[in-house]
Amino acid sequence: MRAVDLIEKKRDGGELSAEEIRWLIQEFVAGRVPDYQMAAFLMAVYFRGLSVEETVAMTQAMVESGERIDLSAVPGIKVDKHSTGGVGDTVTLVLVPLMAAAGLVMAKLSGRALGHSGGTIDKFEAIPGVRTELSLGEIVNQAKRVGAVIADHTTEIVPADRLIYELRDVTATVPSLPLIASSVLSKKLAGGADMIVLDVKCGDGAFMQTFPEAKKLAELLVRVGNKLGKKFAALITAMDQPLGRMVGNALEVRQAISVLRGEGPDDLRAVTLALGAELLYMAGEAPSPEAGQKKLEHLLESGAAFGKFRELVAAQGGDVRAVDDPEKLPRSERVVEVRAQARGFVLKISAKKIGQVAGLLGAGREVKGQKVDPAAGVELLVKVGAEVEEGQPLARLHLGRRACVAEAMELARAAFIIGPERPKPSPLILDRIV
Amino acid sequence: MRAVDLIEKKRDGGELSAEEIRWLIQEFVAGRVPDYQMAAFLMAVYFRGLSVEETVAMTQAMVESGERIDLSAVPGIKVDKHSTGGVGDTVTLVLVPLMAAAGLVMAKLSGRALGHSGGTIDKFEAIPGVRTELSLGEIVNQAKRVGAVIADHTTEIVPADRLIYELRDVTATVPSLPLIASSVLSKKLAGGADMIVLDVKCGDGAFMQTFPEAKKLAELLVRVGNKLGKKFAALITAMDQPLGRMVGNALEVRQAISVLRGEGPDDLRAVTLALGAELLYMAGEAPSPEAGQKKLEHLLESGAAFGKFRELVAAQGGDVRAVDDPEKLPRSERVVEVRAQARGFVLKISAKKIGQVAGLLGAGREVKGQKVDPAAGVELLVKVGAEVEEGQPLARLHLGRRACVAEAMELARAAFIIGPERPKPSPLILDRIV
Repeated sequence: MRAVDLIEKKRDGGELSAEEIRWLIQEFVAGRVPDYQMAAFLMAVYFRGLSVEETVAMTQAMVESGERIDLSAVPGIKVDKHSTGGVGDTVTLVLVPLMAAAGLVMAKLSGRALGHSGGTIDKFEAIPGVRTELSLGEIVNQAKRVGAVIADHTTEIVPADRLIYELRDVTATVPSLPLIASSVLSKKLAGGADMIVLDVKCGDGAFMQTFPEAKKLAELLVRVGNKLGKKFAALITAMDQPLGRMVGNALEVRQAISVLRGEGPDDLRAVTLALGAELLYMAGEAPSPEAGQKKLEHLLESGAAFGKFRELVAAQGGDVRAVDDPEKLPRSERVVEVRAQARGFVLKISAKKIGQVAGLLGAGREVKGQKVDPAAGVELLVKVGAEVEEGQPLARLHLGRRACVAEAMELARAAFIIGPERPKPSPLILDRIV
Repeated sequence: MRAVDLIEKKRDGGELSAEEIRWLIQEFVAGRVPDYQMAAFLMAVYFRGLSVEETVAMTQAMVESGERIDLSAVPGIKVDKHSTGGVGDTVTLVLVPLMAAAGLVMAKLSGRALGHSGGTIDKFEAIPGVRTELSLGEIVNQAKRVGAVIADHTTEIVPADRLIYELRDVTATVPSLPLIASSVLSKKLAGGADMIVLDVKCGDGAFMQTFPEAKKLAELLVRVGNKLGKKFAALITAMDQPLGRMVGNALEVRQAISVLRGEGPDDLRAVTLALGAELLYMAGEAPSPEAGQKKLEHLLESGAAFGKFRELVAAQGGDVRAVDDPEKLPRSERVVEVRAQARGFVLKISAKKIGQVAGLLGAGREVKGQKVDPAAGVELLVKVGAEVEEGQPLARLHLGRRACVAEAMELARAAFIIGPERPKPSPLILDRIV
């Protein structure tokens, strides 16, 4: 087999066999197919797409490129979740202990994304002492003992995805549905869970900006995922304004603790409950998603989920005093307010712009290996629909050490659109694909 | 500027500015834009194309990547020619001395193509002693002295083309009209001529298999070429059966000598005269191509062109005794005949298959640096339209040292299609684009 022939076949709209795709991925990971051939292949895929069968084969080949987490020795039903990424998306920090409190096992691998705010791992590490670089053995042991794990992706898990993603990032081949699907699904498959719920974000602050795009991706993910021998479901959720009220690492931990204690913010709580209810239903632990949701609400109110979070933090070496008293989490000493420039109703809070503000404040990283500032971030004091007076504070900016204050203030102001008429409330859960 | 942004712009069908294209080529040649980004860009160009302005900019940027041959110190009108490549295409060996005999200057850079038979350089080197690796200074001096040069492409001339072509070859991005055009034109521009005639081959043995494809390429070449400040014209010529009767290095030299002596084969003579006449007309040395052709016929018949060829060979260190007596050229000691399997008329001689036969006999190279066998090749004893008896010899195969005889015989037989009715003669010059 020659890589150039496979590139040509795809370029001309042909369908590659599972064997051809496996060969290409194997040889690429082994360094025998060079980056430039893979780059040309990826661009051909961008234009020609992959069939469902090709996407299945690609995902399998990627899973086979590395080690898998074997949770078979862990009793109980193993569940997992993936989000396509949004601003203020703190769901994982709430959902992992919530599922464990419900008797399921959730060992979640997450990352430290490049981007405006940190990834789940960055957020979790904002709790002093938390260690996320666990070995495969540690992950399995903690899953048995606690039922909940939040660990960093290791390079042994799906190295093909890391290598291909790095290449896509610099060759303008990121926005390809089958490539996105194989990337997401390969990591979920290697993660060892039996059933997986996907949160496909849709809107200004998400990768998929329109509902039809998001729906297409969600359907592809569920369709390909189900062909791979695991149970998949997806929710499409709104990402026009940030989820919750906090964007930033320690700030989002505070917000997660608030939800785990049975409080708000309402939207973060609602999305988390909807995703969790889907998992309970898939696992056969609830007769319907609605019944599952009731069960989970109870676990939040009773303190069981919060207790499980304390256990999770302790198991990974974190300081539970910071969980009990979030004032002990990293805090910025410098906070500035952004005020309304007119009276009226908040029509829109651009999730994208607020994400960029968080980045300007120091919450994210621009290059790999850079440290995020745990204290930096944005605290929204209002959400879409609120009625505000001129001069009323709309947000607090928590300045990190390297914050670009003037630029952040200006962008934050531009993120809020205020108008004379109260906007119609828009739904949070846009669709459900099973 | 970032390469990924330019790739994305092209991916989305945008038009790059001349400055953006220049930057991309410069940085690529300097090694600062890696192969994988260029590969993704080339595949995006395959799908999206380049506008005429982009192709002009790309060609210019490629020319600027290396040195140019400066023929301004050489008196007279400097002409050049390029063929998109065919089987038995010995035109250059005849045309260069013929143009010099007509008082024009032709310093032709050629290559040693990968392929079934050698490139012009391989053919010319079949004459014992001929040296083709000339310095830029040597090329200019010989152009002044003899008016005729056939030299190997040096790496200093258009390095961008060499680098990009190597990448296209392994990333399935060769068949892209604007990429072909920029490759062809950049080399012609760097070659220093004032007017250039292009021979776009069309048919089974050519890169462009159909007339509409060939016409599209010819029009693009002339259109872009004329925007680059030189005078271009193109002929589209048939490449369904091999040109002439010889395919192979020394065999083609023999055939060139035959034409230079005023003899046949007719088709090679006709194509050479048509291309040369176009150059004379462009140079203002003939009131019409037809008048130019008359002038050139006289130069063949008078021995002037042959005399110039002897001068050219001598100037590059070759043994003129082999020119005077072609029996002294490398010859294979082993010759086998391919015979007609039925009586009838020769309807078709597949140029592609005959090219492959020449390759099997040892006339070409599969990997860079491999030596071609100067003696190997195919000698056609009949051409399309001939009436043959069963068992009549159709071709002689001149076996090289590493010849795959059985395979070559079988393929050679398959190259000839014989049928009961005399085929209609088909034109050799299909179109003229000025």
